[in-house]
Amino acid sequence: MNNIITINREFGSGGREVAIRLAKSLGYKYYDRALLHQLVKQSNFDETYIENVIKNSNDDFPYTISKSFSLYSAPQKQATDVLVLEQKIIKQLAEKSNCVFVGRGADVILNDLDPLNIFVYATMESKVARCKAKASKEEKLTDREIIKNIKAIDKERKKHSLLLGSDAWDEKENYDLCINTSYVEIKSIIPAIESFAKAYFKEVK
Amino acid sequence: MNNIITINREFGSGGREVAIRLAKSLGYKYYDRALLHQLVKQSNFDETYIENVIKNSNDDFPYTISKSFSLYSAPQKQATDVLVLEQKIIKQLAEKSNCVFVGRGADVILNDLDPLNIFVYATMESKVARCKAKASKEEKLTDREIIKNIKAIDKERKKHSLLLGSDAWDEKENYDLCINTSYVEIKSIIPAIESFAKAYFKEVK
Repeated sequence: MNNIITINREFGSGGREVAIRLAKSLGYKYYDRALLHQLVKQSNFDETYIENVIKNSNDDFPYTISKSFSLYSAPQKQATDVLVLEQKIIKQLAEKSNCVFVGRGADVILNDLDPLNIFVYATMESKVARCKAKASKEEKLTDREIIKNIKAIDKERKKHSLLLGSDAWDEKENYDLCINTSYVEIKSIIPAIESFAKAYFKEVK
Repeated sequence: MNNIITINREFGSGGREVAIRLAKSLGYKYYDRALLHQLVKQSNFDETYIENVIKNSNDDFPYTISKSFSLYSAPQKQATDVLVLEQKIIKQLAEKSNCVFVGRGADVILNDLDPLNIFVYATMESKVARCKAKASKEEKLTDREIIKNIKAIDKERKKHSLLLGSDAWDEKENYDLCINTSYVEIKSIIPAIESFAKAYFKEVK
């Protein structure tokens, strides 16, 4: 069985950066919403196509650490078949190799595979500062607007988790490790998370 | 300014063991309820005595990792002056050297000193199993009684924190790191916590 890490995070907490850096550091594959959607979209809902892409993919998907609101595509009403297909893809990817999933309810979907579940959060002040630092030049939002956006996105994430059957998206009891990024540099905490992950997989496997 | 770590924990989660091992591993002083009470008691409320003990203490206090219900002295109604004196002692100890405090609201009392605040928790199943493993031979409680005791003790801890002005004893937002000990061996996660602590103090100081 592969080592699977799932990371849920509050928008602006840097959880995606944690996931990307952790995957790189551990040599695990990294998957997020954009990559999964790409797979779903490319497939034109053809499951055989998806299976082939996953089986034959040896390269890492490209990814960038920075993500501002302008790069964030607002959740749209998704047809149930898209969600079902996405779940299937997540399961197939988890069977293929060690990996890190960010978001998309992977913690719920892969529950039977004993993933290490991590939650990343931060103070609102810290999240606003991070959003501002990553904003594009055209993106000129007030603090109030940023806070509104953060809350709306997190609400959608919570709803998505609920849709999959978990009502504990932001509760520590749902996770093995909860990390507050308000007062640490993300780069510098990766060795700690890596060490915790190794202790976890040593015990669980 | 010294590096200060505070650890709050659910009863039975092994948080005390985390604190003891972490202090040993980092070479920090370790303080818990028993040691603080000893200081208060020995002092006969003489603050000068306390100050002298703290100033002249170079040895580690003795401590053991195991703690069952039989070793747990139930919280009694404490006179306000005992609590005030305890707070004073906690502040003095924190000024003396790098240290790890377990419980006693040190996270609230030492807030101005930027402590690394950790919360340790576990599933009820895991906590019951830990309590049973540590119980003395005479201590024969049913699972139901153990659960009742765990809940009562945690309720007291929450109340103590509230008394000091924090209503977030068991909320992740109050902590820098929350660790679920249900599926890991405590000994094996100490390097991870140590690594996180170093990243934290590097950034905060």
